[in-house]
Amino acid sequence: MQEKSGFVPNIFLLLAHRPDEFRAFFAYHDALMDKPSNLTKAEREMIVVATSSANQCQYCVVAHGAILRVRAKDPLIADQIAVNYRKANITDRQKAMLNFAMRVAANAYAVGDADFAILKQHGFDEEDAWDIAAIAAFFAMSNRLANVTDLRANEEFYMLGRS
Amino acid sequence: MQEKSGFVPNIFLLLAHRPDEFRAFFAYHDALMDKPSNLTKAEREMIVVATSSANQCQYCVVAHGAILRVRAKDPLIADQIAVNYRKANITDRQKAMLNFAMRVAANAYAVGDADFAILKQHGFDEEDAWDIAAIAAFFAMSNRLANVTDLRANEEFYMLGRS
Amino acid sequence: MQEKSGFVPNIFLLLAHRPDEFRAFFAYHDALMDKPSNLTKAEREMIVVATSSANQCQYCVVAHGAILRVRAKDPLIADQIAVNYRKANITDRQKAMLNFAMRVAANAYAVGDADFAILKQHGFDEEDAWDIAAIAAFFAMSNRLANVTDLRANEEFYMLGRS
Amino acid sequence: MQEKSGFVPNIFLLLAHRPDEFRAFFAYHDALMDKPSNLTKAEREMIVVATSSANQCQYCVVAHGAILRVRAKDPLIADQIAVNYRKANITDRQKAMLNFAMRVAANAYAVGDADFAILKQHGFDEEDAWDIAAIAAFFAMSNRLANVTDLRANEEFYMLGRS
Amino acid sequence: MQEKSGFVPNIFLLLAHRPDEFRAFFAYHDALMDKPSNLTKAEREMIVVATSSANQCQYCVVAHGAILRVRAKDPLIADQIAVNYRKANITDRQKAMLNFAMRVAANAYAVGDADFAILKQHGFDEEDAWDIAAIAAFFAMSNRLANVTDLRANEEFYMLGRS
Amino acid sequence: MQEKSGFVPNIFLLLAHRPDEFRAFFAYHDALMDKPSNLTKAEREMIVVATSSANQCQYCVVAHGAILRVRAKDPLIADQIAVNYRKANITDRQKAMLNFAMRVAANAYAVGDADFAILKQHGFDEEDAWDIAAIAAFFAMSNRLANVTDLRANEEFYMLGRS
Repeated sequence: MQEKSGFVPNIFLLLAHRPDEFRAFFAYHDALMDKPSNLTKAEREMIVVATSSANQCQYCVVAHGAILRVRAKDPLIADQIAVNYRKANITDRQKAMLNFAMRVAANAYAVGDADFAILKQHGFDEEDAWDIAAIAAFFAMSNRLANVTDLRANEEFYMLGRS
Repeated sequence: MQEKSGFVPNIFLLLAHRPDEFRAFFAYHDALMDKPSNLTKAEREMIVVATSSANQCQYCVVAHGAILRVRAKDPLIADQIAVNYRKANITDRQKAMLNFAMRVAANAYAVGDADFAILKQHGFDEEDAWDIAAIAAFFAMSNRLANVTDLRANEEFYMLGRS
Repeated sequence: MQEKSGFVPNIFLLLAHRPDEFRAFFAYHDALMDKPSNLTKAEREMIVVATSSANQCQYCVVAHGAILRVRAKDPLIADQIAVNYRKANITDRQKAMLNFAMRVAANAYAVGDADFAILKQHGFDEEDAWDIAAIAAFFAMSNRLANVTDLRANEEFYMLGRS
Repeated sequence: MQEKSGFVPNIFLLLAHRPDEFRAFFAYHDALMDKPSNLTKAEREMIVVATSSANQCQYCVVAHGAILRVRAKDPLIADQIAVNYRKANITDRQKAMLNFAMRVAANAYAVGDADFAILKQHGFDEEDAWDIAAIAAFFAMSNRLANVTDLRANEEFYMLGRS
Repeated sequence: MQEKSGFVPNIFLLLAHRPDEFRAFFAYHDALMDKPSNLTKAEREMIVVATSSANQCQYCVVAHGAILRVRAKDPLIADQIAVNYRKANITDRQKAMLNFAMRVAANAYAVGDADFAILKQHGFDEEDAWDIAAIAAFFAMSNRLANVTDLRANEEFYMLGRS
Repeated sequence: MQEKSGFVPNIFLLLAHRPDEFRAFFAYHDALMDKPSNLTKAEREMIVVATSSANQCQYCVVAHGAILRVRAKDPLIADQIAVNYRKANITDRQKAMLNFAMRVAANAYAVGDADFAILKQHGFDEEDAWDIAAIAAFFAMSNRLANVTDLRANEEFYMLGRS
């Protein structure tokens, strides 16, 4: 990220304070967000933006909103998903993906067969379900860390990918 | 708005379908948002953005986020308030204003003396409290109308006031 | 209202303090509650009573409960709907109407195709859906104004239409 | 109740179906509602009406609303408390009593020293706290039974004590 | 209970303070928990444990968890149901029973035909529905009493039925 | 863990399916739970049990409840904290620690100066606050993964540390 964008995201500075946690955090992050998967990188960022908005995490919505705009090559999509993903210009399959992610974010204790059946109807298999759930779960953690530490998004993120 | 920005906000098209409601809606809107008041126009837009985000209203967050950026001459403020106004770069007085607005949006039935005492500590008098409450209440209505009719924000709003 | 009942509802006194808002409020109110519509006037008052009770608005439940009793020529209906509309002596079609109104009052951000399909099954078309939503939205505003200003219902309303 | 009012409340008919439960229910009810206590009988009915309204129990709000009107000799009080007890014409001490009752109804798991300290400030001792809590708890049970069995209030209750 | 276990459950000591309430409470309890019914005694304790856990009642979860382990002859079942009954090793029929009990505990106002239809599909008749609802309702009361009085479970309960 | 207890916790088997995530998960876990800190290891497990119970995570409550019993050398503490930590036999300082952890688990977006002031009153500094928040956040993630994958606790955990 730093190399491409020319600035150091503030989350790096925050976690640098705790080197062991820093390494584990980014190892986990990269395993979920950068490895090959049936979910496109833009779709993974959609999950981050939708669930981080439900958790009211300013850093994550602004920073990952920027990455989503870049990856989806769409200047409008991040704001739409942040405010109400149900009304965003995305496919029904992507809405099903986000419905599941939001269940994991808010009601994981009640996730069950009915949820997986809907995912399957939209072509998501068990590995895809894991990916969606793991990203929603990882940002359940990140959102809480960022909110408690009052982490601010770098100013550069606000404009990235808007034009 | 149209004259200055060169496009017709979609809310006009939506309500044009019902001329009597259209006239009353905009008469009410203008009485609250354009008349002289102790609240600056930027502060009034902060109320709109914060409460509309809580109500997940895409049109209102995107359109009034744009107006807020223009009125506050601040390209970052709308996104900050939309995601989590408690963490936005605004004054403590403005946070007290938004705390009250959010009480009206979510728990108006429990508003009482303690709320007004806090407002008073921050220099808001009874007329100011009415202004804050009336704007939060008006957008409680607008947000619901926009969400039920799936109203989309004009594309022009997304970039307005960002640079 | 005043002419028929012989007293001035307190909401008039409250809003008289702000003439521009007064005019817009009642113009909007009358456009929704008095104009011709597929919804009967009693049905529109049912929407007011059910959603105002969810918002714990004393003025609106007591005053519009009275109007509902008068319009429906039924002394019991308002109390039933105020406490739990699901258990009131109304038709299934009216319950579907109130289910939709309550969705608008509480979860408008999630209203979608499934909601409109249910309305259609009960014979409500798109204009009817607008009417239901607009009344629920208008009283989302009114309820908040009345609660914040501690508006009390005129004593006359409590007995109106009970015998 | 029957003797005085000349009709048999429907809750008697409902529970007659289960004689052992019937006897225990009314023994418990009478121990809480009819025995000597520092709370007046009208105050005890206030607790029933406020908590039963939060639980949306039609039978209990309508029937005990009637009893409250009779006991308080006030035709307006029951409707006020049913919709929003915070705005009812009752004393601050009675509002503290209802705040505690509502905590028991909704969040008993969090009741603690702070709650008892507020009660004490208003002159309620430990026995009074028990009375308030026990009534709120007993109607937590009654409200659920009445809602599940779709219990309707006798028509006579609606008008009782209104003039 | 005392005779079999050799100790006096603390709930007896708590309520001994109020003899009339004591007698009514245990008469009601025994009518629901000890009489013949289509629900096994273990199933009735499942209802107690699941709903008491939702109400965060330490006494009821620990004490009735012990009784459930004894009655079901299963050392694991109580902890599973207390944390998340949806993931416990119980039958689908028992999950349907607990789904209904949890509706009564949390949303009794919305219980209706759809709920009874699901119960019927799993072989529960109207009397069984009453039993489930009455137990959930009775412990809605007990849980509140125990939480307000800070009732602790006897130490003996923690180990009962674990080996 | 395995070495000491003689069995492999099921979470290892679950995550073995994804080696990169496995390594990052346990690196993070160990950095938070095993490193030197002002919080005792028993206190850290208290945070896990309280927040995991709020998230209804069966694996985490049962497995970490066992570890808590062992580390605190107290056979009762885990069940008490799981059901209602406010009523557990722990110090006021530990209750303040758990209050903060629960804020992070449920409302991290609203954590602010008032929360840190309370922590400070109980002798927790900024590093301690980070530890509490990071553990609550990490298990916000773990709880969601375990619930979505229906992860069961090893039977051995249920009895560990009870005698």
